[in-house]
Amino acid sequence: MIESPRDDVAFVCKIASQLYDRGWMPGTAGNISILQSDKSAFAVTASGRDKGELVESDVVIASVEDGAAVEGAHAPSAESAIHAAIYRCTSAKAVIHVHSPYATALSCRSDQGITTVDIAEYELSKGLGHLESSLVPTFPNWPDVSRIATDLAGYFSGLPQSPPPAMLIRRHGVTVWADTLRQAKNRLECIEGIAQLELLTGTASHVQISI
Amino acid sequence: MIESPRDDVAFVCKIASQLYDRGWMPGTAGNISILQSDKSAFAVTASGRDKGELVESDVVIASVEDGAAVEGAHAPSAESAIHAAIYRCTSAKAVIHVHSPYATALSCRSDQGITTVDIAEYELSKGLGHLESSLVPTFPNWPDVSRIATDLAGYFSGLPQSPPPAMLIRRHGVTVWADTLRQAKNRLECIEGIAQLELLTGTASHVQISI
Amino acid sequence: MIESPRDDVAFVCKIASQLYDRGWMPGTAGNISILQSDKSAFAVTASGRDKGELVESDVVIASVEDGAAVEGAHAPSAESAIHAAIYRCTSAKAVIHVHSPYATALSCRSDQGITTVDIAEYELSKGLGHLESSLVPTFPNWPDVSRIATDLAGYFSGLPQSPPPAMLIRRHGVTVWADTLRQAKNRLECIEGIAQLELLTGTASHVQISI
Amino acid sequence: MIESPRDDVAFVCKIASQLYDRGWMPGTAGNISILQSDKSAFAVTASGRDKGELVESDVVIASVEDGAAVEGAHAPSAESAIHAAIYRCTSAKAVIHVHSPYATALSCRSDQGITTVDIAEYELSKGLGHLESSLVPTFPNWPDVSRIATDLAGYFSGLPQSPPPAMLIRRHGVTVWADTLRQAKNRLECIEGIAQLELLTGTASHVQISI
Repeated sequence: MIESPRDDVAFVCKIASQLYDRGWMPGTAGNISILQSDKSAFAVTASGRDKGELVESDVVIASVEDGAAVEGAHAPSAESAIHAAIYRCTSAKAVIHVHSPYATALSCRSDQGITTVDIAEYELSKGLGHLESSLVPTFPNWPDVSRIATDLAGYFSGLPQSPPPAMLIRRHGVTVWADTLRQAKNRLECIEGIAQLELLTGTASHVQISI
Repeated sequence: MIESPRDDVAFVCKIASQLYDRGWMPGTAGNISILQSDKSAFAVTASGRDKGELVESDVVIASVEDGAAVEGAHAPSAESAIHAAIYRCTSAKAVIHVHSPYATALSCRSDQGITTVDIAEYELSKGLGHLESSLVPTFPNWPDVSRIATDLAGYFSGLPQSPPPAMLIRRHGVTVWADTLRQAKNRLECIEGIAQLELLTGTASHVQISI
Repeated sequence: MIESPRDDVAFVCKIASQLYDRGWMPGTAGNISILQSDKSAFAVTASGRDKGELVESDVVIASVEDGAAVEGAHAPSAESAIHAAIYRCTSAKAVIHVHSPYATALSCRSDQGITTVDIAEYELSKGLGHLESSLVPTFPNWPDVSRIATDLAGYFSGLPQSPPPAMLIRRHGVTVWADTLRQAKNRLECIEGIAQLELLTGTASHVQISI
Repeated sequence: MIESPRDDVAFVCKIASQLYDRGWMPGTAGNISILQSDKSAFAVTASGRDKGELVESDVVIASVEDGAAVEGAHAPSAESAIHAAIYRCTSAKAVIHVHSPYATALSCRSDQGITTVDIAEYELSKGLGHLESSLVPTFPNWPDVSRIATDLAGYFSGLPQSPPPAMLIRRHGVTVWADTLRQAKNRLECIEGIAQLELLTGTASHVQISI
């Protein structure tokens, strides 16, 4: 499938509908974005929309600099600041944030500060790409979203190795990124699958880190 | 989507079918209502109907005063007394009651009397609106439904702060309310998601209250 | 919906497909039947069929006397002996047997002999009809199916009160019955829902009985 | 349904789509194959494809000798070596490998070496065929897939009885085989159902074996 700029918005709506139908975007939760080709902005789902009923005008344009609105009839998701930080810190071209049950439950096991879980022992970790590091971080769920974005950027800048393309936010949800939206969806399925295995049988502990 | 009086009944049937397909309305369980514009009555699903096969004549009119039948070929749901109490005590314009598995399981953890669970720590609680209070009550499942309605009205009248738009009935199910039926469905997804997280990893306790 | 003899077979196929899609009839497991109007025989799914792909010739006629084949291109389900026993012992006009996950898991908690679980405390038990008794029995899973049917008939004949229209077979599955196939499907949803609540939060014990 | 060579590829795509929709092939995980009539090669899903979007050119031909590519626009799944070993060691004509959640979780309970779980007590084990042995093995998840295939062949050659048509790979997934692809899908549903019962209520232990 060609993911041309023209098709991006329709594809965002299609993926949103699929993920909503799985129960991974309850209420109006979750947001999806695709980076524009000039890398200065990204198309992202608007704030407060039911992802099972998304229409094309519910996708707006936000700035890579800070996630603020650039274009569109509605305000971008409040969590666009996190998408923007990922686009600035990584080579990602698509980002998905959802409240899927098992990844979110895994985030609830993190106590305080930034913690990591090692996913190396699961075959499904290969679905996240060729990993230099298998430590998935969980960040505090600050009420001010820009502070989560700041935590994320600080964490990335201090890492000796490239991190896996996934992060958790405590008692909140999971965010993944990739070269394409389809690949981001595939990676999301892998991290949710790993989290389900952890919840069912796992012994992996959240390890607290200092940055 | 315009939710005009004319479209209400079809919309009730559509939402019922979606919730049935998720397994949240097993057997003939659950009921859905929309307040009429004059606020004296509400359209509500009839008693004993399979929610996966609802037709428009299965939606009847009941009184806001006590939930008794006003109009329609069939008797309204026995739990219309609870819908009526919610319409009298809050500004709700739509109510959904289901037996979704996790919210119902959470209600089973309540021992006796009226208890509350605090949902503040979950991001999904934001999906219930801007909350003054994050304490979700669980009520005893009296065989006489009107007594549940009485408990509810008594509880609401004694609260210092506006409660979240959701309540549990012990070993029975969950009820949510909102300004529109779509919003009630979204809120239901959030409370079910929170309950699933509680069941998977939670430490929130039911706290018994006296009123 | 009229459930005339002419429509019975198509309706059996439709319900089988719905239950297969929920994962309640894994492999070729489960069987569904409807009693004929003269009460001497019943239409039942043939042995070894994939319930997601059932066609009308996969429904055959078996005797109420013993479940043996009366008519049809294929052998009736080996568990037709159990359907037959239910038609002889109760006023049922439709029977469904499935391997739904939670009811089957509940059956695995039964140790030996015939045991019962009391479902009275769950609101969903009302979905099984106006119950004289709320004790759901679990029977041993004898390799010779006719012995399960004999256990069932013996159990029914010794009861002081009419039993709920549902039974479990240990490490095997659940069987429900009703006046119509639709009602049997609704009751099945209720017993599966109760079993899920039991698995998630329950404290009900299997109680061993002697007959 | 006739499973002629001509129809094989379309049928592989159809089954892949069904299993993807159930969440059993997260990301691009899992692979499906059908043996060709001359038994020297098999049609198998290509490496790295999203199983929810499979098209006919995503099915390629691999050698029964070692799983290497024989024909097709894309590389066969890296796990074709395991399919090949199964075709060499058994009379299987179709193989399915997935990462279904409960069977994979069951594999995570295996500690080291090759272990077995006895599934005899579950009625669903009958869905795997007339079993001489009811011991399902779990193999180590070696990074070099051919070593898994070697383990499998060594294990099969040392058995006094024909094994059940299913195996687990530790922290990885489950593989089943059968005379037809439809039968393999049915058997997969049974092993996943057994694993779910084990996770919910089971007491079966992995027993370590020496070969």
